[in-house]
Amino acid sequence: MNPSLEQLFTQARTANGYRPEPVPDDTLHALYELLKWGPTSANCCPARFAFVRSDEAKARLIDCVSPGNVKKVLQAPVTVIVGMDMDFPDTLPQLFPHTDARAWFAGKPELTEATAFRNSSLQGAYLIIAARALGLDCGPMSGFDAAKMDAAFWAGTAVRSNFICTLGHGDPAALMPRSPRLGFERACRLL
Amino acid sequence: MNPSLEQLFTQARTANGYRPEPVPDDTLHALYELLKWGPTSANCCPARFAFVRSDEAKARLIDCVSPGNVKKVLQAPVTVIVGMDMDFPDTLPQLFPHTDARAWFAGKPELTEATAFRNSSLQGAYLIIAARALGLDCGPMSGFDAAKMDAAFWAGTAVRSNFICTLGHGDPAALMPRSPRLGFERACRLL
Repeated sequence: MNPSLEQLFTQARTANGYRPEPVPDDTLHALYELLKWGPTSANCCPARFAFVRSDEAKARLIDCVSPGNVKKVLQAPVTVIVGMDMDFPDTLPQLFPHTDARAWFAGKPELTEATAFRNSSLQGAYLIIAARALGLDCGPMSGFDAAKMDAAFWAGTAVRSNFICTLGHGDPAALMPRSPRLGFERACRLL
Repeated sequence: MNPSLEQLFTQARTANGYRPEPVPDDTLHALYELLKWGPTSANCCPARFAFVRSDEAKARLIDCVSPGNVKKVLQAPVTVIVGMDMDFPDTLPQLFPHTDARAWFAGKPELTEATAFRNSSLQGAYLIIAARALGLDCGPMSGFDAAKMDAAFWAGTAVRSNFICTLGHGDPAALMPRSPRLGFERACRLL
């Protein structure tokens, strides 16, 4: 079924609590099979996703998040850690095979980091919208100890944590009042 | 009309050339009225959007982009510059009124920059998906001289350029072959 604009944008709300329905593995696969098609610079696809569901992984995660986010993570059926792989240039021969894009990043750690941060954030947003398209609610958060999170979930890799996002079927009773947005005239210019 | 998952994700392609149909101002307003609802950290909404359409603004923009992107910008009916306002904390009393979120960023330029970069990137991705939902095609790009772009479009403000994106009705004849994506097992972990 096609998602509505209300479901994706105008009526979608950040979940602050979840009903107990689980999120099946099939749904997480379907989620990736949508979000993976979102565009990234030179198709670099730097995002890595750790879907935390088990009690053991949740306990590790809770140890890394800000006190205000512990209850949200505990209660959510899934929390995804959106990481960014600083070694993404090594995937470019596969992902962008028609030119030597890996060479663009050789010896350029600042460009590599900025590219990983920008594009894994884009992919995190694709995940949020794709989850809504599949009927899930989301609760993105950036309150956590990044060094601790990296050690707990990405040890032995060049992946670093960007942000985290709870996923599940939101409890409407737990919603906060909706905050305002900037008007077009404040945020946009027509040139 | 509800957008399909094909239109948003699985069949959507990065435009590499456009048909001559213009993009009316009303469509750009509708685009912002969708994307503005996408979630950001503490509702900080740091993205600023400059929609370049006129010959004068296009000439300024062409002077800032990488040689390989000149033709794309020239040919597109609209190119949006996605900026990030480093002064976004000043909007928090309006956007997140129930607590003093501005204080979280006082004297913390690194946190402010990372928050602006991450969240304006999320908003740039909301723009891409919202544009597709409205029947537009997109061509996101990050090849430009950022200092020159900031001076040409955001002088006298704390806005810095994040990325640019052409918008319009794509020419199917100009599409590149589609590049592969990482498999679920390579990009994701179920914990």
